[in-house]
Amino acid sequence: MIATFDGSSVNLGREGKVLYDQSGFGRPGAGGLTLSPEEALYLLHRNKIEIEGYTFDSFLAECAASPGFFRCYLVYRDIRERGYVIQPGPHDFRVYRRGQRPATGQSHYVLRVLPERELIRFEAIVGDVRSALHMRKHYVLAVVDDEDELTYYEVKLPRLEKAADCAGAGIIDAKVFGTTVIAEHDAAAALEQAWFGTRLDAERLMLSPTETVFLAGRGMLRCGGGPASLDTYIEASMASDADLRAKLAAYTHLRDLGYIPRTGYKFGHHFRVYSGKSTHSEMLVHALDADAGMPMSVISRSVRLAHSVRKKMLFACTHENTVCYIEFARIKL
Amino acid sequence: MIATFDGSSVNLGREGKVLYDQSGFGRPGAGGLTLSPEEALYLLHRNKIEIEGYTFDSFLAECAASPGFFRCYLVYRDIRERGYVIQPGPHDFRVYRRGQRPATGQSHYVLRVLPERELIRFEAIVGDVRSALHMRKHYVLAVVDDEDELTYYEVKLPRLEKAADCAGAGIIDAKVFGTTVIAEHDAAAALEQAWFGTRLDAERLMLSPTETVFLAGRGMLRCGGGPASLDTYIEASMASDADLRAKLAAYTHLRDLGYIPRTGYKFGHHFRVYSGKSTHSEMLVHALDADAGMPMSVISRSVRLAHSVRKKMLFACTHENTVCYIEFARIKL
Repeated sequence: MIATFDGSSVNLGREGKVLYDQSGFGRPGAGGLTLSPEEALYLLHRNKIEIEGYTFDSFLAECAASPGFFRCYLVYRDIRERGYVIQPGPHDFRVYRRGQRPATGQSHYVLRVLPERELIRFEAIVGDVRSALHMRKHYVLAVVDDEDELTYYEVKLPRLEKAADCAGAGIIDAKVFGTTVIAEHDAAAALEQAWFGTRLDAERLMLSPTETVFLAGRGMLRCGGGPASLDTYIEASMASDADLRAKLAAYTHLRDLGYIPRTGYKFGHHFRVYSGKSTHSEMLVHALDADAGMPMSVISRSVRLAHSVRKKMLFACTHENTVCYIEFARIKL
Repeated sequence: MIATFDGSSVNLGREGKVLYDQSGFGRPGAGGLTLSPEEALYLLHRNKIEIEGYTFDSFLAECAASPGFFRCYLVYRDIRERGYVIQPGPHDFRVYRRGQRPATGQSHYVLRVLPERELIRFEAIVGDVRSALHMRKHYVLAVVDDEDELTYYEVKLPRLEKAADCAGAGIIDAKVFGTTVIAEHDAAAALEQAWFGTRLDAERLMLSPTETVFLAGRGMLRCGGGPASLDTYIEASMASDADLRAKLAAYTHLRDLGYIPRTGYKFGHHFRVYSGKSTHSEMLVHALDADAGMPMSVISRSVRLAHSVRKKMLFACTHENTVCYIEFARIKL
């Protein structure tokens, strides 16, 4: 089949329609079938079409002048070779369920193509995922790394179900020792029962800054050293940890849903989170302000780590006291 | 045994010397045995001494006013409870081999105590590790996280042995297509043989920016589009990747030693590195400028990830064209 290229799209004429009907290539119109550059290059590569005046290399050279084209082509080709029908738009592709195409069904995935260094802005991506969900589609990132290998991530906005009633520990007496808050005897036992703190010894239990500020904010902590020392402690904690405000928002939200967040330091994230249904923590949660950004390569590290310890990787974005969870999960399409 | 506290150190008098002789506590001097606050609090906790006018809590309150004391105490106690003799200094402790103490041997580890958020300056830590090695001691970081749990890391400066002769691929012809460099036919085969590039199809192979700049710098790449297009490509690559200079330094150093660095994107780091002795990549390498810094919690993420995929975690620091590798390995003392 012979196609023509006008510098921006490739036209196949009316006999091209069979490619649309059978395999979902191109957009049919009055003048025949129009192909995007990615579609045309793929059909050229598969020897399904020829383009007047172009070889594969010269057509590639023409297209590759536009930034991002090559990445999009690699993703287009990969999805096609996995047996899916893929169409351009809205950003950057729509992918149909296996066996379906434009004539027979709705697209299932919205797919965005990006290089490994792209900065992911959490607020923006939440907006994109919401739009996709609104259209009842899944939102997938296709990352093309520097060696042109592809990795797919589904981005979800999980709504955490209530795991249990929030465990209370009554009003607890504790003492501030410089940068450490310690509860003793019965108070230590009550806190431990509600999954707060770390044992110093048989009589004493230490509270983390997040736990202390959370309990103090709920009026559940009474400090022996007087309220002044607790205030000083909280001020010092806030000053020494720029993430504490975001961590507190996520911690409070998780606690209110009955989850048990504990330090995630060993996994390099803010919290490992237990639902209480198993002795294994099911999630890693990293708290951020909604306007935060992170390069995709750094998110990749988190996703790989969470996967290797069989946990979900959630970023908890705080925006005006609401917490939104963003899950990145590697998928194999 | 009754001790006195003068506000900065605890004195046990001459009968305290038995604690030094038997278990390596304190520093003996003319006036008796002097204990650091950590040593004194630990002996108080174990009911081995009493301090005139103080309970455990009041002595702790006194000590905890000095920043970092509590972290140091937790580490001191943990090391003691693991059966090692530990002494203060130079930063922050010296730890003896199991069964040894000041009177019978040399300390084996230099141990630095830090909170999870501490910024690790690579240049500074290389200096610290070198000083420790100079004294024939191992350098260990004891990280105290927000929930007061302890994690130990040995920091090493591995010298990579030559793995093989650097594989050459002769002079290779390639073409620049916008942001992509492609070699064809025999050139593609020769590059693949030397572990460069990713296959686009049976005839074509794509080179990554790092590979392209490396090969071009070695005069091993001749570009069809003329040197101008290669220069434009390299300039654009440098502009779009702030890490490319550091990556190139590490890449070149590893290649010259006969290692095969490939993208480490899926592991969230710059390179996974093969020695060629196995089909498994043995190292993750992240390239940085020597004056870079990273919070310990971020390093922890890298170390945990590398461990979970059975690789060593190396940071490659570039300083005036020399590359120094810093390995962080979690250890259980």
